[in-house]
Amino acid sequence: MSNEVYIIGAGETKFGELWDKSLRNLAVEAGLKAVEDAGIYSKDIDAIYGANSLAGIINMQENIGALIADFSGLSTEGIPSLRVESSTASGGAALRDAYLSIKSGEYDVVVVGGVEKMTDIHGSDILEKSSSILDREWEAFFGATPAAMAALIARKYMHDFGVEKEALSMFSVNDHLNGSKNPDAQFRNKLTIQQAMNSTAVADPLNMMDCSPMSDGAAAVVLASESFIKKNKREGVRILSSAVAEDYLSVGSRKSIYTLNSTKLAVEKALRKSGIKRNDISFMEVHDSFSIFGLLELEDLGFAEKGKAKDLVYDEIKLNGSIPVNPSGGLKAKGDPYGAVGVGQAVDAYRQLKGKAGDNQIKDAKYALLHNMAGTGTSSIIHILGE
Amino acid sequence: MSNEVYIIGAGETKFGELWDKSLRNLAVEAGLKAVEDAGIYSKDIDAIYGANSLAGIINMQENIGALIADFSGLSTEGIPSLRVESSTASGGAALRDAYLSIKSGEYDVVVVGGVEKMTDIHGSDILEKSSSILDREWEAFFGATPAAMAALIARKYMHDFGVEKEALSMFSVNDHLNGSKNPDAQFRNKLTIQQAMNSTAVADPLNMMDCSPMSDGAAAVVLASESFIKKNKREGVRILSSAVAEDYLSVGSRKSIYTLNSTKLAVEKALRKSGIKRNDISFMEVHDSFSIFGLLELEDLGFAEKGKAKDLVYDEIKLNGSIPVNPSGGLKAKGDPYGAVGVGQAVDAYRQLKGKAGDNQIKDAKYALLHNMAGTGTSSIIHILGE
Repeated sequence: MSNEVYIIGAGETKFGELWDKSLRNLAVEAGLKAVEDAGIYSKDIDAIYGANSLAGIINMQENIGALIADFSGLSTEGIPSLRVESSTASGGAALRDAYLSIKSGEYDVVVVGGVEKMTDIHGSDILEKSSSILDREWEAFFGATPAAMAALIARKYMHDFGVEKEALSMFSVNDHLNGSKNPDAQFRNKLTIQQAMNSTAVADPLNMMDCSPMSDGAAAVVLASESFIKKNKREGVRILSSAVAEDYLSVGSRKSIYTLNSTKLAVEKALRKSGIKRNDISFMEVHDSFSIFGLLELEDLGFAEKGKAKDLVYDEIKLNGSIPVNPSGGLKAKGDPYGAVGVGQAVDAYRQLKGKAGDNQIKDAKYALLHNMAGTGTSSIIHILGE
Repeated sequence: MSNEVYIIGAGETKFGELWDKSLRNLAVEAGLKAVEDAGIYSKDIDAIYGANSLAGIINMQENIGALIADFSGLSTEGIPSLRVESSTASGGAALRDAYLSIKSGEYDVVVVGGVEKMTDIHGSDILEKSSSILDREWEAFFGATPAAMAALIARKYMHDFGVEKEALSMFSVNDHLNGSKNPDAQFRNKLTIQQAMNSTAVADPLNMMDCSPMSDGAAAVVLASESFIKKNKREGVRILSSAVAEDYLSVGSRKSIYTLNSTKLAVEKALRKSGIKRNDISFMEVHDSFSIFGLLELEDLGFAEKGKAKDLVYDEIKLNGSIPVNPSGGLKAKGDPYGAVGVGQAVDAYRQLKGKAGDNQIKDAKYALLHNMAGTGTSSIIHILGE
């Protein structure tokens, strides 16, 4: 059975604090851009998969899938629209589910969109609501927040491996260097290492430059089956594989708090199913909700031994390095609208592999690895794209 | 490509006001019952699909998929766990997604669970939170609630077709007659037509006996591929087809407020893909969140002309009638825990088709149609089960 699945179009809004755009506006803007980029019409669309993490909590609106279809004017044709939620991995989860739906032979063309409107959270509620991605009863109830959990992990990691704060800050410096050249990025400013090290404390040892921002944004891609591609003489970027794995929801339950077991399991599955080797990867978009996770991901994706990611962050992860990381600017600089991140990664990778990444273009980009993670590592969803 | 998909086990909690059980307790109870019924072990499980509608809003907890895997003790094995949300059709949506994941060849065994813990809603918030399934900005913002929208639909329907209140009440009478014999049902009392007609008004012309209750509950089924069945010499109930279709989220946007277009489109797709005819259906479990929807569903599923469902509700929908409806007791009597309903329907149908439905057993039950709907008809998800 070989129902190959391709990305044939992509589109996204800017990521940022977008006060003048609603959840609906954002979703439709990204969706229409992707559909136009793919050169298809609504009659071609078999289904919509919508990713969103917090609209139930923030906007008191569930049924996002239907909302998106409705607002896009697609309800007249009865096109199925489903919402997928896996906290901050919602985007990757929707991408995966859409991929499986085409692989199963059920659909030929699926639009996958991710959207989040975090600036609708009332200021006083931000910690409460973003902590919904943790274990409510065993972590959040006791006052933990995502930043606090990341800080605990960072402190123990730095202690056990003798890693200095500078190594964490360099991950954000790299993100900002790339973000400065990405027109869709929330932050266009370059960051010096001094600025990154001296920023305001958030949860020691993490400061503001170690933490991804609150963001609004939407991103969408159009997936198509091999038969659609052939029949319509299109070209696309192939999804070589998709894999997902879990870990304990509560950090305290895990074997080691600085090992992302879900990432380790998922990347092995993804590489095995893709048929390519780790060394074949041209670049990666990883889930750096906090700088510490950026370092752990370099290790748990298999590019460095535990505690040794510091050896990669000065040169190797740059655009011209041996393993470019987050050419888009990543979660820190491009932005972190929870439900849109995983789909946004696919947008960026699609553009890189088509040679349309502008100033951030990686030479001879051939294979991309996308890593989307839920919360503090509860689940990791990995996609490998290429030819 | 013929990756057939079977249900090989099922389990559920009682539905009702379950004050002493938490969201986690409920999910795990149903899941473990299903796994035990299927005779499998955690090492056999490839993935978990969890359906839930409101936990983000009620319990401030997202990432339900991970929570369920974690609490079930399945996190150690990194088993993927994903949450699907399509408001009150979340259960059917999860069932569908799991079905497609096996059909695609990705998995062999998937546990699908649905859970809702509605008694965690603070009393004063009930209308606000349950209205999240409507269009927040164009319906709920103006004071509409699900019952109010159903009432508008009922009033126009009764006027245009000369249907008396008694016809609506009979749908609930049938539900309660069946519920009285279902040990898992929230309500075990039989209902007389007088009691149903004279109950307290909720949103005229609908009274309390026209409206499904607030419920807690969880249900789970184990799906397996044909190759798993053959290798392990199992028997299951086959999922002949799965189909979904949308309509406008906002009732006021639809062509006709008493025609469930999503249901009409979905049933045609489901029948076409199943290879059986409408007349072959032995019984149905439909989404009667309100009695009026029960009647509309009989019509839009194709068993009566528009306005003529009243001719079926006195005898034909009974257990020994020509088209038995809701042998479980339906949403009115068995209960309506939003995310669990669609999966609960699969549990009931599985038991019927295996001859294990106890006092509600339908003679020679061969094919079942399950209809799960989002909100006021925004989307309909239909599954046909049989041999």
